[in-house]
Amino acid sequence: MNEQGMRTGVWLVGARGSVATTAVVGAAAVRTGLGDCHGCVTELPDFPDAGLPRWDDLVFGGHDIVDLSLDKRAAELADAGVLPHRLLGPLAREIDAADAEIRCGAPPYDPRDPLPPEAAAAQARTAERIGADIEDFRDRLGLARVVVVNVASTEPAVPVRPEHGSLPALRKALDSEPDVLPPSSLYAYAAFNAGCPYVDFTPSTGARLPALDELARSRGLPYAGHDAKTGETLVQSVLAPMFAQRALRVRAWSGTNLLGGGDGATLADPDAAASKTGSKRRGLEQLLGRQVEGHVSIAHVPALGEWKTAWDHIAFEGFLGVPMSMQFSWHGCDSALAAPLVLDLARLVAGAHAAGLAGPLGRLAFFFKDPVATTEYGLADQYRTLREFAAALAGPA
Amino acid sequence: MNEQGMRTGVWLVGARGSVATTAVVGAAAVRTGLGDCHGCVTELPDFPDAGLPRWDDLVFGGHDIVDLSLDKRAAELADAGVLPHRLLGPLAREIDAADAEIRCGAPPYDPRDPLPPEAAAAQARTAERIGADIEDFRDRLGLARVVVVNVASTEPAVPVRPEHGSLPALRKALDSEPDVLPPSSLYAYAAFNAGCPYVDFTPSTGARLPALDELARSRGLPYAGHDAKTGETLVQSVLAPMFAQRALRVRAWSGTNLLGGGDGATLADPDAAASKTGSKRRGLEQLLGRQVEGHVSIAHVPALGEWKTAWDHIAFEGFLGVPMSMQFSWHGCDSALAAPLVLDLARLVAGAHAAGLAGPLGRLAFFFKDPVATTEYGLADQYRTLREFAAALAGPA
Amino acid sequence: MNEQGMRTGVWLVGARGSVATTAVVGAAAVRTGLGDCHGCVTELPDFPDAGLPRWDDLVFGGHDIVDLSLDKRAAELADAGVLPHRLLGPLAREIDAADAEIRCGAPPYDPRDPLPPEAAAAQARTAERIGADIEDFRDRLGLARVVVVNVASTEPAVPVRPEHGSLPALRKALDSEPDVLPPSSLYAYAAFNAGCPYVDFTPSTGARLPALDELARSRGLPYAGHDAKTGETLVQSVLAPMFAQRALRVRAWSGTNLLGGGDGATLADPDAAASKTGSKRRGLEQLLGRQVEGHVSIAHVPALGEWKTAWDHIAFEGFLGVPMSMQFSWHGCDSALAAPLVLDLARLVAGAHAAGLAGPLGRLAFFFKDPVATTEYGLADQYRTLREFAAALAGPA
Amino acid sequence: MNEQGMRTGVWLVGARGSVATTAVVGAAAVRTGLGDCHGCVTELPDFPDAGLPRWDDLVFGGHDIVDLSLDKRAAELADAGVLPHRLLGPLAREIDAADAEIRCGAPPYDPRDPLPPEAAAAQARTAERIGADIEDFRDRLGLARVVVVNVASTEPAVPVRPEHGSLPALRKALDSEPDVLPPSSLYAYAAFNAGCPYVDFTPSTGARLPALDELARSRGLPYAGHDAKTGETLVQSVLAPMFAQRALRVRAWSGTNLLGGGDGATLADPDAAASKTGSKRRGLEQLLGRQVEGHVSIAHVPALGEWKTAWDHIAFEGFLGVPMSMQFSWHGCDSALAAPLVLDLARLVAGAHAAGLAGPLGRLAFFFKDPVATTEYGLADQYRTLREFAAALAGPA
Repeated sequence: MNEQGMRTGVWLVGARGSVATTAVVGAAAVRTGLGDCHGCVTELPDFPDAGLPRWDDLVFGGHDIVDLSLDKRAAELADAGVLPHRLLGPLAREIDAADAEIRCGAPPYDPRDPLPPEAAAAQARTAERIGADIEDFRDRLGLARVVVVNVASTEPAVPVRPEHGSLPALRKALDSEPDVLPPSSLYAYAAFNAGCPYVDFTPSTGARLPALDELARSRGLPYAGHDAKTGETLVQSVLAPMFAQRALRVRAWSGTNLLGGGDGATLADPDAAASKTGSKRRGLEQLLGRQVEGHVSIAHVPALGEWKTAWDHIAFEGFLGVPMSMQFSWHGCDSALAAPLVLDLARLVAGAHAAGLAGPLGRLAFFFKDPVATTEYGLADQYRTLREFAAALAGPA
Repeated sequence: MNEQGMRTGVWLVGARGSVATTAVVGAAAVRTGLGDCHGCVTELPDFPDAGLPRWDDLVFGGHDIVDLSLDKRAAELADAGVLPHRLLGPLAREIDAADAEIRCGAPPYDPRDPLPPEAAAAQARTAERIGADIEDFRDRLGLARVVVVNVASTEPAVPVRPEHGSLPALRKALDSEPDVLPPSSLYAYAAFNAGCPYVDFTPSTGARLPALDELARSRGLPYAGHDAKTGETLVQSVLAPMFAQRALRVRAWSGTNLLGGGDGATLADPDAAASKTGSKRRGLEQLLGRQVEGHVSIAHVPALGEWKTAWDHIAFEGFLGVPMSMQFSWHGCDSALAAPLVLDLARLVAGAHAAGLAGPLGRLAFFFKDPVATTEYGLADQYRTLREFAAALAGPA
Repeated sequence: MNEQGMRTGVWLVGARGSVATTAVVGAAAVRTGLGDCHGCVTELPDFPDAGLPRWDDLVFGGHDIVDLSLDKRAAELADAGVLPHRLLGPLAREIDAADAEIRCGAPPYDPRDPLPPEAAAAQARTAERIGADIEDFRDRLGLARVVVVNVASTEPAVPVRPEHGSLPALRKALDSEPDVLPPSSLYAYAAFNAGCPYVDFTPSTGARLPALDELARSRGLPYAGHDAKTGETLVQSVLAPMFAQRALRVRAWSGTNLLGGGDGATLADPDAAASKTGSKRRGLEQLLGRQVEGHVSIAHVPALGEWKTAWDHIAFEGFLGVPMSMQFSWHGCDSALAAPLVLDLARLVAGAHAAGLAGPLGRLAFFFKDPVATTEYGLADQYRTLREFAAALAGPA
Repeated sequence: MNEQGMRTGVWLVGARGSVATTAVVGAAAVRTGLGDCHGCVTELPDFPDAGLPRWDDLVFGGHDIVDLSLDKRAAELADAGVLPHRLLGPLAREIDAADAEIRCGAPPYDPRDPLPPEAAAAQARTAERIGADIEDFRDRLGLARVVVVNVASTEPAVPVRPEHGSLPALRKALDSEPDVLPPSSLYAYAAFNAGCPYVDFTPSTGARLPALDELARSRGLPYAGHDAKTGETLVQSVLAPMFAQRALRVRAWSGTNLLGGGDGATLADPDAAASKTGSKRRGLEQLLGRQVEGHVSIAHVPALGEWKTAWDHIAFEGFLGVPMSMQFSWHGCDSALAAPLVLDLARLVAGAHAAGLAGPLGRLAFFFKDPVATTEYGLADQYRTLREFAAALAGPA
């Protein structure tokens, strides 16, 4: 795919957030040789060069509902230690270029505060506008394709509605009712209608509705998700197989997540947290082969800024039931962990689209807490699968 | 191999130590249904029943240089929380039976305090006596085979000597000089001469000398080793691949090991510790693909009794060089972690012998810090290899 | 007070629980020289011999609503590693003697499931029966006094009721209404009526009602409380002053408590947890001089058995606002931490009663998360106050 | 002392190091209102305004053997996250002013590489030059006094020599031999000769020689030290009293220190580390009242940059010998912890000098791992003593 004409758009929903800003600045830094691409999996020697867009091929745009300019956001992130100060000057032009491609996003959505009936069909109109923004970006810049990646704040869990079950029912509801879809799903709907693959980077609902799966398949579009693993769950995805393979009996696995920054504030809402803790727990029990005691707590600690700290305690038994324990703590910068994965996913999903794949990409499970279309939760197996996937995209050697 | 006549001896060097005693009592507890076999990998559903001796097939004996009876040692371990008190009464007969098969071991060896010249050939005589003890055990009890497992205290690192380089040179030196081999290697020599496979469960030299490899191959005997991973290194063998696969750049990995019990006392000797920290570090750097800062310290803390606590600190960089860190601590009961692996290894090496394999068993790397005949250090890959190995032993389904 | 005739009853509410059983067995072990009194503050060289009942002077009894015999409970605690197995045989007679002095307790109380109106005055009758049990114990055994200590499971927080505000109102309500007092307060009411000092060892309401304070003072009775600090809060009470005295600005202090055993189950009820987390937080903010971010979570993890693990994360700033952090984890056996404090408090409150003190004993703040009648939360200051208190009880040297 | 004419010099030995640079920039930031004085104990409300030089009164100079300019050093520290970038511009003039007062220091000293005999009396000449530099600074700037503070890299432990035992013997040796004193002591000698108080901020020998004590007293000069506690030892100084006051029996206390930056490199030398671990261990055992198992390790981990991480594991016993444990880790920025204490000490020692105190200031133990002239190691007691000291300097209210 590395030929001429493979310029690829990366359309970020939540384009002014920390993750998106770090991705935009970081991609520019790597492209210009000013920064290291630590954290980018597709740059490892295990991965072939072919089949994926190059760094030079990536062009950024997106939606957001705040209007702080990207250079101001980048300066904030530099003060917070997420971006090196030294990058901002040399990359100012690239940052401004991305800023110029950011459009006003879909309004937030609160199922506890429904829109009035007269707003019926408002979502259909929003979806059209969103789709038009993306198509304009693609056409104006002559891009081969645009991958839409949702990196906006986590939404509250959404109640199941019958109209989510099939595409005709969904289209009908959108024409006649307000508040049919949460924003993450509305973006997926718009993206698919515009012929764009979609990545659920967050635990929000996004493309995971039967109606949207139907739409993606019918349009020949791949999608990936959901909920990128960047800390506690990443570590769990190697430790849980270790305990299982060593036949050590895990009795309880308890986790505490202290989150600064934006996602922390969102998850202070117990409804939003529920969708995240659900993601986290599912993989753990799948890997251990059964339910274990313990629970996951998420707390918002603004003093941590862009950082997050997780502590896990694992109580397990060895031979003859002797009780033992392990604990770990992880201190990471959320955006610096997430941004390279955004770029990896944009490249891989672009490659999948170019290769003609459609529907959920279970083989990208490596990146996610709660991967679609697979039951593979162990990181080592996921990595093997990912390498095979990338090799297949690259084609015969 | 599960037919009649497959009774298998497990000959433990260091038979009155904590690991050996736990293995003997635990095997009896599992056989009689009184105890759980947590920690026994070969009992996982991933492993076939065929090809390995059954629990009922295992018979225990061994060498030791202390003479505390096994039931007293077991009582100490019960007070220390390693064995459940409730097992000792019901298993008294089995414990006594193993005790009756323990013979006086080879004298310790201190390269800094050499034997006098008149002791020349003393080691050759000791090796003959040791071999005769094992052959008597096998013949008297009608065992199909005996696997010798070294679980004695870690020895100091041993200087390379030219006579270790070939079997003829070794035999000649044993006939004419004292202190040619450290005890762990003398046991391997005796075991191979007696037609028995051998397992290096500790970091001591054991079978890892060219002369002994030559002997094992010439006699058609398999051997495995070395240095079982039961804590810090086990965790490292899943975390290091995680960092590597996520392209996160590890800058420094520092480890502290607080060891109670016998092994702690041995490793308080910096020479013995050197052989252990070497084992630990090799795998880590292999997995990360390069050298990293940090060092491993081992301290003897008798107050921890049979327990050990390890703490590791990992400094790593994410996207654009942002510094992050992870730490873990592991609190485990050494003997309860090691004993089930002793049983796994005895069964697997017996199966390998029955299947006609000879020489170093690289496919058992899953169990070891510094495995022989392989460069596979990641636990997930090692587990896959182990399953394939067990399936091959089981033969066509 | 060490003269003849100073035999002192220790009446335990929740007498068959882990803490009470450990206190009874432990006191017998110390008295007979079979056990160490680690954890008993009044045995430190800093404390005078005079003024407190001796170990030989202590006699145990109590109330409970379960009827598992004390020797069976002690056997369970030995299996759980809380009591040494070797003590149970030699102390059987002492354990049975305490068991024979345990009476049936007050029924539990659930403000969400009120008693029917016809049960009016049931609490008044229960209080009379309880008081009679204690008086019988005192009179029959010829005790100088009986200290009542509440070590029962933590109750849900109790709504404020006007009749709690004065003794006449309380007496009137008890005569005409059901469910006036939570059990912990009913015991305090009964104890005071019987002329006995009272210790709130738990976060339950107990004596902390204006009406009960009035009763204690009018009867010349001292009381102490509440919520003994045995782990996370104990550590906080030295770390928080350290940060304050070093002028290091604590930004966030987050705590996670994993509790096995009985108290864990109780605190899985968010209402009961609320009363505990309130206790914990108050002291911390008092010591730091202001509110800080972060929150306390309590989770019930039955797999931990009698143990509890707490993890605290402290984010603080140094010079010029540089962010730093500290974390600690505490792995303790709850009953083995609590029981010696129960004995210390029984002895000190007995001494206070003998010395004629009445009302809340603020000078015992050293023992409590949320001490009555004081604003002294730092452990070092509390210890100094405690030594002065003990010296005063001992009288002129 | 807050009157006109109280301008005070702070003369930093190691003036271009991280600690000194942070102290200089930080003092300027606080004076100009651009920075917070977190970490400055003398600014707490517990401390009176009177008796100490004000921030406006402090003037900086010093010695160093490297010649990187202070503004470059400050820029490095800003990149490393120790100083806020935003301060460097506004404070450039103040930084340059301090830079202009830095003189070339005494050459390093290696007892394993002695100077040739012809260098006899070289140290006497160096001491004279150093003293003249300080006197020039004081006289030229019209300072009421100059406090000399050693913040240079830790020296190896120094062998005891007979000429250290008295002032006449020392003077005689300096006139006729090379290598009589380590640099830290040579600076103290020069400072005292110049009429200046001295602070041993590091574990180096400094003023702690009988001959130098004699000199300080004869000149009416106070001195303070040694080895400021800024992390692990600070925490130990509150946790150890906690265990002691709770009668919990500490069995083992093990510590691991991972140090980046300059001090880490110095302490990678086992000789230098020995002087540091000795300091650390003394206080711990004093506080616990006896020796405990465990040991302190110090490792240099350059990847940590200006940060250090310490991990301590404490194994202790509760009632009836039940084993429990606690662990903590401390992640701090060394210079940001040390610099405010340098300023505190400079102010307090200046106040002591103004008040006519001479000899070792045991009442400043609060700041040090191994304080002179006191056996008070518990932080709470040390704080109380410090407050009384400051109140005495302030005079009658």
